Amino acid sequence: MCAKKVIFDTDPGIDDACALALIAASPALELIGITTVFGNASVETTTRNALYLRRRFGLAAPVARGAERPLSKPPRDFPTFIHGENGLGDVALEGLDSLGATHAKDAADFIVEQLRAAPGEVTLIAVGPLTNLALAIERAPEITALAAEVVVMGGAFGTAGRPGNVSPVAEANVWNDPDAADRVLTAPWPVRIVGLDVTTLCVMGPDYMAGLRDRAPGVGGFLWEITRFYEHLYRTRDGIDGINAHDALAVARAIEPALFRERRGPVRVVTDGIATGQTIQSVEGVRYPPGPWDGLPSQSVCVEADNAAFLKLYAEALVAWEAGR
Amino acid sequence: MCAKKVIFDTDPGIDDACALALIAASPALELIGITTVFGNASVETTTRNALYLRRRFGLAAPVARGAERPLSKPPRDFPTFIHGENGLGDVALEGLDSLGATHAKDAADFIVEQLRAAPGEVTLIAVGPLTNLALAIERAPEITALAAEVVVMGGAFGTAGRPGNVSPVAEANVWNDPDAADRVLTAPWPVRIVGLDVTTLCVMGPDYMAGLRDRAPGVGGFLWEITRFYEHLYRTRDGIDGINAHDALAVARAIEPALFRERRGPVRVVTDGIATGQTIQSVEGVRYPPGPWDGLPSQSVCVEADNAAFLKLYAEALVAWEAGR
Repeated sequence: MCAKKVIFDTDPGIDDACALALIAASPALELIGITTVFGNASVETTTRNALYLRRRFGLAAPVARGAERPLSKPPRDFPTFIHGENGLGDVALEGLDSLGATHAKDAADFIVEQLRAAPGEVTLIAVGPLTNLALAIERAPEITALAAEVVVMGGAFGTAGRPGNVSPVAEANVWNDPDAADRVLTAPWPVRIVGLDVTTLCVMGPDYMAGLRDRAPGVGGFLWEITRFYEHLYRTRDGIDGINAHDALAVARAIEPALFRERRGPVRVVTDGIATGQTIQSVEGVRYPPGPWDGLPSQSVCVEADNAAFLKLYAEALVAWEAGR
Repeated sequence: MCAKKVIFDTDPGIDDACALALIAASPALELIGITTVFGNASVETTTRNALYLRRRFGLAAPVARGAERPLSKPPRDFPTFIHGENGLGDVALEGLDSLGATHAKDAADFIVEQLRAAPGEVTLIAVGPLTNLALAIERAPEITALAAEVVVMGGAFGTAGRPGNVSPVAEANVWNDPDAADRVLTAPWPVRIVGLDVTTLCVMGPDYMAGLRDRAPGVGGFLWEITRFYEHLYRTRDGIDGINAHDALAVARAIEPALFRERRGPVRVVTDGIATGQTIQSVEGVRYPPGPWDGLPSQSVCVEADNAAFLKLYAEALVAWEAGR
């Protein structure tokens, strides 16, 4: 089997760390770079965390620092009540003075360089605000013909009546930079979107996380630690016994598309007004008067995931990886 | 039983005619006025049709002509492909030269006058663009304390993943005047909204309509005639064997609230951009960062209807009415 080359565009972030562990553990994926972006914390913090996770997980891929703010909107406050002040659930992070350097290029330039170097081979997995990808397209529009696919954790399409998480209709990654998201999701490259429609229905409960901790004490123990804060929030704020596997589901989409049921059609993002950050798909085959979706490329939006199969895939990958290290 | 006084704000329109028949047939409702608005056709046509339906159904209530265009947006084309050139499925309408006159007051003034005359007693059932109601509030803001309730057919809240009918997120009545809808739905009066979430799941099939025709030849025969065009459109465009009972469900909400399951929370309307005409509810009990729903009155949005009970109520009302005439 030939592993898929992957660039992971991320704002770690607790569920970002869980997702990166799955990339690291998956023989189906070859991580060729990590690009960072503001979002769950400042880009200083998310970049520091990416370097930390790289060492913690024993990865060789470079870390390229990316955007510190949205393309044109004013920056939003960082959600420290979700990811902690340090972006990783406020667990103590050791050895921060010896994390190594970031790549010489910034995130957008790194993405452009890598896509040009391996046309048709690189999958982008983007689980934060889409600012880096939008900047990469702006600097080198031809890259939309070079990516193998673009897997995005973001958006809320209301396919099952699930609301947004930062407004009744908006999901945080898209809301953090709706202008960038509109450019990335309407670009002529194959986008697969894993939004709240599926991620909020996939729960990693405390027993599941404890099982990871016990069966793979290195990586599972670390994920157990950093998710305590996050799990407490889900329980007290949302009444959910466990955490939503938001970003890791996007990684699973890159590994095993058959776990997802999707619908196709052009996607636009609301960039202003009360619905800012909302993602709207005009589903193929449904006719409306002429409108803003006309003539845009169809993208895939996940409307259902096989959660049991995902949880099995995730645990087996981490356990096998740790056994092999 | 004391009948509820009702003003029917309407743009007939085929399903408007079906809804007016239910008002006429229901002992629970006392129709005190019909106000007309542009929408399914021009206000000239909808007013003519209201006068025609008044005579056809033997009603005494006055018809007050209302708005001919949205508050501030440019007018949209009228959907003649749905309601026909004459707004009533292009069936021949007899005796149009002797329909009588409209009320001296316009629709908004008529609404204000009637609400003032019977404080707390009048229910507004609005099944077209909400322009007349918005103008009434503008002219006499105190009327929001005078209406018994405001039942609106409009909007698409995506509660069951159902899309809009004029864009992926917008329903026609709201889209026709989103500024008016935002004012009416955020006003401090009790609004009950029956949107596409429920109306697109309620189908009056050809057998059902034929049953009405046979059991109540006068009114049922007329409704059979005017729905042939509409039914053909549903079948060929949407693959639905029958017609959606959009407006009549709003009347049913006024007659029998127990047929509906609802959720509460403030509602806003998107007035510009790609989501124009979308209705968005911030559901009570779900917390978001500060936003445009804060401090607004909670309204009721129907999320489920007992369709079998509605169809029974509708048919029984029409049959009993015709037997008693």
